Amino acid sequence: MKKRTHLTDKIQAKVQRILRLSVLCMIGTSLMQQNCRAQKDDSLMLRKITNDILLHGQCYPWLGYMCNKIGPRLSGSPQAAAAVEYVYQLMKSLHADTVYKQDCMVPHWIRGDKETAKILTDNAGEFSAAICALGGSVATPPEGITAKVAEVDSWDELKQLGTAGRLKGKIVFYNRPFDETLVQTFAAYGKAVDQRVNGPSAAARYGAVATIVRSMTNRLDDNPHTGNMGYNDSLPKVPCCAISTIGAEQLHRLLKADTGLRFYFKMDCQTLPDEKSSNVVGEIKGSRHPEQIIVIGGHLDSWDLAQGANDDGSGVMQSIEVLRVFKALGIRPERTIRVVAFMNEENGDRGGQKYAELAKLHHEKTIAAIESDAGGFSPRGFGITGEPKQRKEIQAWEKLFYPYGVYDFTGEGGGTDIDPLKDQGTILIGLLPDSQRYFDIHHSAMDTFENVNKRELELGAASLAMMAYLISEQGL
Amino acid sequence: MKKRTHLTDKIQAKVQRILRLSVLCMIGTSLMQQNCRAQKDDSLMLRKITNDILLHGQCYPWLGYMCNKIGPRLSGSPQAAAAVEYVYQLMKSLHADTVYKQDCMVPHWIRGDKETAKILTDNAGEFSAAICALGGSVATPPEGITAKVAEVDSWDELKQLGTAGRLKGKIVFYNRPFDETLVQTFAAYGKAVDQRVNGPSAAARYGAVATIVRSMTNRLDDNPHTGNMGYNDSLPKVPCCAISTIGAEQLHRLLKADTGLRFYFKMDCQTLPDEKSSNVVGEIKGSRHPEQIIVIGGHLDSWDLAQGANDDGSGVMQSIEVLRVFKALGIRPERTIRVVAFMNEENGDRGGQKYAELAKLHHEKTIAAIESDAGGFSPRGFGITGEPKQRKEIQAWEKLFYPYGVYDFTGEGGGTDIDPLKDQGTILIGLLPDSQRYFDIHHSAMDTFENVNKRELELGAASLAMMAYLISEQGL
Repeated sequence: MKKRTHLTDKIQAKVQRILRLSVLCMIGTSLMQQNCRAQKDDSLMLRKITNDILLHGQCYPWLGYMCNKIGPRLSGSPQAAAAVEYVYQLMKSLHADTVYKQDCMVPHWIRGDKETAKILTDNAGEFSAAICALGGSVATPPEGITAKVAEVDSWDELKQLGTAGRLKGKIVFYNRPFDETLVQTFAAYGKAVDQRVNGPSAAARYGAVATIVRSMTNRLDDNPHTGNMGYNDSLPKVPCCAISTIGAEQLHRLLKADTGLRFYFKMDCQTLPDEKSSNVVGEIKGSRHPEQIIVIGGHLDSWDLAQGANDDGSGVMQSIEVLRVFKALGIRPERTIRVVAFMNEENGDRGGQKYAELAKLHHEKTIAAIESDAGGFSPRGFGITGEPKQRKEIQAWEKLFYPYGVYDFTGEGGGTDIDPLKDQGTILIGLLPDSQRYFDIHHSAMDTFENVNKRELELGAASLAMMAYLISEQGL
Repeated sequence: MKKRTHLTDKIQAKVQRILRLSVLCMIGTSLMQQNCRAQKDDSLMLRKITNDILLHGQCYPWLGYMCNKIGPRLSGSPQAAAAVEYVYQLMKSLHADTVYKQDCMVPHWIRGDKETAKILTDNAGEFSAAICALGGSVATPPEGITAKVAEVDSWDELKQLGTAGRLKGKIVFYNRPFDETLVQTFAAYGKAVDQRVNGPSAAARYGAVATIVRSMTNRLDDNPHTGNMGYNDSLPKVPCCAISTIGAEQLHRLLKADTGLRFYFKMDCQTLPDEKSSNVVGEIKGSRHPEQIIVIGGHLDSWDLAQGANDDGSGVMQSIEVLRVFKALGIRPERTIRVVAFMNEENGDRGGQKYAELAKLHHEKTIAAIESDAGGFSPRGFGITGEPKQRKEIQAWEKLFYPYGVYDFTGEGGGTDIDPLKDQGTILIGLLPDSQRYFDIHHSAMDTFENVNKRELELGAASLAMMAYLISEQGL
């Protein structure tokens, strides 16, 4: 008996402290409630919304279906079309008041199936290298490209070598890594991605024949990460690829030993004519101010290397979960809640632009737009861009979110798909999930459903729903 | 050109907001610094510590070695002995001032290799079921046990059935699930684990012949989760196992259709005589108050079903990382930093008890003990147990941790291994990582190195190191 009690005590003690924390939170909430009747009602409703999502949420199986049954959804692909149809039917099945598509033309780039690469050294032999074409790249000639490699870590170095004529006929290898000391991995991405986006034309300016960029990731592994780039139309378009971080490290090492080594790669990607595609929109009409619209969304398209589970199937399904939970709990919002699954965020932003264009055309009043496009990880806060008065109004809700681990309301926010609404006076809000794992999988073959955690995804959906609810009931 | 600039702008804008956040944090930090010279020095040193761990941290490869080369480390096993030796050598290689072992006797339970189970129905046939013995369970007879099943969700229901004589000769099936509405998953564990710990003897009291418990997890999958239980010595010891959540759902469904179904299971586990094992201790002597000791630790033993990567290889390696970073940065702490890899947390707590016993015997003054035993996930806060004055002193450091995503200092904290120090006046501190994924893998075959993220692990280590540094320099 003693032993059993002893053991139970141990384990119970282990969790008791955490339970006490919950009690403290409740006491905290309770004190706040005495001060403010409205906040009490709000906090009860937020609890109801979160409980319903944690108990009955569907975003996880919906995402599973889209990832496993439909698959990668690059703009213009049959899978992107299938995803439009799936999400359209899904919103209908939830009895949204209105469900419709917004057509837009999208780029149609395809990767081909002959991507291959080798490092060729005189002394140490050949090494295969894991690469992938950057989105929008031109193909190599059918026989591939073989050339010497110039590694650069900065634009200054590029300019120096270029003006000295030392890049002519070469492949430029951009190898500046992520700054690992930045706690927010998006900040590291921001400091490195210029190499991917601007690198090809910057190198072509000096006569380089192609470019390789170190994959945009914190992780050391053999998965290349694709992503968009942009050619300068006045310069030759050179083929450009990303190399895995292990490949980048190896190439760097081998170049140290043999500056004359050659890199060979072949890619058969191509850009086809634009395709018709769509945003999908579903809404619940506001009961009191139907003309005031709150947009909630993520993007439906993904890169082609994996299922686009975290980028951004998560954001789409979290947004649709908001529709579900409002319907399930019989919440009739005061303002209109409009869920948008945007098309073509990855390589054109055509869906986001089309949405804003139509909103302007119809003189809509979009009071707020909330985007989830940073992965389906544990939510930690919201970034907010808007007038200081509006930002403060939202920041005042911080305490309501604290029990859900959502505490950071300090930064600015928004997202590629909602940013075009900014000049319509819309306040822009971006969900901030924990960022540590995002670039492990981002734009690579690792972005699969297995790398999404059900509860993390649901807590993100709950955060969106809570934010939408508060804006809907209180206005901005 | 336009297109390229346009694209860069888009991507840069996407991260710019987050960068601005960093700037805001820096401005915030800067204002604080003007007010307080000491905090400025502290915040610079905390940044140095974190940067060094994010750039040069070794906890991830150390953990990889222990998981992949040594493996599961249940107390008394050869692997546990190998882990003691590995960690001892590791601390020596870091040039800690003192490294030693603290011997203790530990229980030695082994699972055997004949675990198997089936659900036997009259009408629907047989179904295999994924089970595992609970740690410390007795074996079934060699031919197994076959009996009818009584499902219960509460102790009241058990008592009711038991006193009505309806449990005699039966297998009791405890099937109360995790409460998914609790955001902190440890709270859900705390509300369910009584079934695992107390269930076997509680059922034996009413003549039951065995017990099955629903695995302690949020996840619906086919992995059974083991864990400790405790027999009441005055009652018959009945074999007890955990069933996967998919198995539990299936058994529940089949029982609805056929209350007369039988469950068959066989287990050949056994308890051998106690073995000699050890805690491993490594310390850096305090330069000014060497007699004041700050303990930092995790536990070296693990369950036998997987590698014990998150439970608790993570905590051990994060703690040793503190030694490494202090040495690497040449920090000579004012108070003694003592890292302890505790033995036998999972099924006996003998290491933690031995540590406290020796500390008392030697009249040591342990001013604080910090434990990491909740997984190697993104750190979010610390729980603190101690005098209100000390708690407030630590809570005043909250702002210093905020830039690292560590914001929650509201709850109490500690851990199984350090709790025995409480009556020596030690303030107890538990690292609180994000809890969403912990019980997916806890005590199951899923607790492998692949489920640990390098940066999350390192940020947890940095949190421990920062806390140790602040206590060391400022005292409590």
